[in-house]
Amino acid sequence: MRKVSVIGVGMHPFGRFLDKSLSDLGRVAIWEAIEDCGLSLKDIQVAYVGNSLGGLVTGQEGIRGQVILRDAGLGGIPVINVENACASGTTAFRGAWLEVASGVYDIALAVGVEKLYLPKTADSIKILSADSDVRLRDMGFQFTAHYAMNLRRYMKQYGWTKVHFAKVVEKNSYNASLNPYAQHRTPLTVEQVLNSRLIAEPLHLYMCASMGDGAAAAVLCAEEEARKFARKPLIEVAACALRSGMFKKPADASRLNIVALTSQFAYEQAGLGPKDVDVAEIHDAMAPAELYHYEELGFCREGEGARMIEEGRTKITGDIPVNPSGGLAGKGHPVGATGLAQVAEIVYQLRGEAGERQVKNPQVGLVQNSGGYVENDSAAASIVILKR
Amino acid sequence: MRKVSVIGVGMHPFGRFLDKSLSDLGRVAIWEAIEDCGLSLKDIQVAYVGNSLGGLVTGQEGIRGQVILRDAGLGGIPVINVENACASGTTAFRGAWLEVASGVYDIALAVGVEKLYLPKTADSIKILSADSDVRLRDMGFQFTAHYAMNLRRYMKQYGWTKVHFAKVVEKNSYNASLNPYAQHRTPLTVEQVLNSRLIAEPLHLYMCASMGDGAAAAVLCAEEEARKFARKPLIEVAACALRSGMFKKPADASRLNIVALTSQFAYEQAGLGPKDVDVAEIHDAMAPAELYHYEELGFCREGEGARMIEEGRTKITGDIPVNPSGGLAGKGHPVGATGLAQVAEIVYQLRGEAGERQVKNPQVGLVQNSGGYVENDSAAASIVILKR
Repeated sequence: MRKVSVIGVGMHPFGRFLDKSLSDLGRVAIWEAIEDCGLSLKDIQVAYVGNSLGGLVTGQEGIRGQVILRDAGLGGIPVINVENACASGTTAFRGAWLEVASGVYDIALAVGVEKLYLPKTADSIKILSADSDVRLRDMGFQFTAHYAMNLRRYMKQYGWTKVHFAKVVEKNSYNASLNPYAQHRTPLTVEQVLNSRLIAEPLHLYMCASMGDGAAAAVLCAEEEARKFARKPLIEVAACALRSGMFKKPADASRLNIVALTSQFAYEQAGLGPKDVDVAEIHDAMAPAELYHYEELGFCREGEGARMIEEGRTKITGDIPVNPSGGLAGKGHPVGATGLAQVAEIVYQLRGEAGERQVKNPQVGLVQNSGGYVENDSAAASIVILKR
Repeated sequence: MRKVSVIGVGMHPFGRFLDKSLSDLGRVAIWEAIEDCGLSLKDIQVAYVGNSLGGLVTGQEGIRGQVILRDAGLGGIPVINVENACASGTTAFRGAWLEVASGVYDIALAVGVEKLYLPKTADSIKILSADSDVRLRDMGFQFTAHYAMNLRRYMKQYGWTKVHFAKVVEKNSYNASLNPYAQHRTPLTVEQVLNSRLIAEPLHLYMCASMGDGAAAAVLCAEEEARKFARKPLIEVAACALRSGMFKKPADASRLNIVALTSQFAYEQAGLGPKDVDVAEIHDAMAPAELYHYEELGFCREGEGARMIEEGRTKITGDIPVNPSGGLAGKGHPVGATGLAQVAEIVYQLRGEAGERQVKNPQVGLVQNSGGYVENDSAAASIVILKR
């Protein structure tokens, strides 16, 4: 396998864009990524397009990526449409990485794009639930409840409180306020979070990612080729791992969830460990989930997630900054775009281009992106480790 | 890149199964493929699931593959959901091939599954049109019209007639009558075809693939590993190529369509030419399309497609048998399942397991699978070349 570099990233700001199509969103991210690496559209040899719910939102299935790419001026190359719920973006990234790492192509594009806002909010909410097993939805199960149940277990087991959870939002909403691509740019206090509407105990409104429209893209290139023309620092893909939830869990599976397993696999692939990570983008569709993801990723020991937020270790100025972009709850969460937006943020950080939210001199960054529910586990978990 | 073998294939018969879910269809194909290679579910290391329209048909998007695989007893592995309209099956196949060829995994599963029949036929037809750019659909364009226009051009340019087209159906419907997996098992005469209802001049009802429900699957394995346990002849993946339609065609592009370009690429990859092909499964969503695909694949020169059917060269007993399975119009065309069903048929043929429809001692087989429309070209074209 060849070394692969991320040579360009781009985004369409996350937000509410009722008048924009998937093509309108995707085009901005694609063009920005292409411009970022100094290439032109005709240099792209293969494209992976991640989108989760566009079929139900727009009525366009089957060839979503071809339509989006055509509208951006790209055709005549292999296009692979991929879907993995909220992990669709990193699934596209992994596909592009594999094409280049295997030597089939030199330059690959990964795009993640999603449009969730519809004139009627109820329509959007029904569609969003298609990211879980719809038979469970039809029995009343909803993914917010899954997060809430997880968090209640941790509250009981380790004494975590809603104040800990609100502190995550305080941190991430502040970070989002510094991010021009973010959907929600107002810093929130712990008090504001705890006074916001209760959604599913212990989750309050401001702890939950809202709907979002947006897009993100990355251009990947064989490192040996990229060295010839790159104008910016090359960002190496040190690991790219994907795993789906277990059909049957071992009885003692409390710590054996797929995020933990996938990150172990990724650390091995990269020859790195949690202590090497200088900055991370974590899948906090509900902000407090950050706390148990700290543990699953090995940033701290079991039960110690809340202490990390108490001690401020994951702030931009901390020793292991997490979600400098604002995270899903702050930056916004247009499902299929999220994973590639996480990748974009880590690339900005590793290049030192993150402006006011810049982490101090990071060398290694980690992306954790998860998607959907089957049984009581995530349907897909991705880890990407990037290295300057 | 490592050599990759297809070691198992399986199918759920194509037909109308109103009472079956995607999981019900997929499970049968998956279990049959696993049994075919003598492995068990736990040996599968990664899975690609191709489905085109399940989001609109069932309301389940985002994690279709995980739900289907879980219901078949498979979990805890990377699952990549892919979509490429009628070429979704071979897109899944290519993904599985790339995982094994690149050395990331040794054993990969590719599944294609589709459910098109709904209680109200009008619902199915509207959903089916999402395989083309829906903005064109909303202007009245429909893919049957695309085929019809192509064929009218050939009639004018080369003197092809409806009798030629009906002869393709005569051949394929006879083949389908010998195939226990086929949806339509009644051999049709030229007269019956020409007397059937006119759909879009020159296409009559029996020239067009009907809706279908079904599934097909293949297990791929690194050749070096497969040699250790295989009970059946190994079928080598000699080429696996995918390309999407051109945004802008050159002015003299009449022969430069993506099927021709993709097959050139595949022949080079395989180190083989059209003359080496002993049996082919061709994407005849409208049966007469076979004739121009003969030309695009290099089986004859430009304009000579009709003569091939006149001379009976593509019958099971001919020198280059095409669609021994019955083809899409005969065997049925559950969109996402089709490409993998074509692969399955070629594997049966190369192993000498095709029963009454067995071609004499084939060594090399070709699959041509296309999907969707963007502008005036296919959105995706796949070629797979398999070798005994």
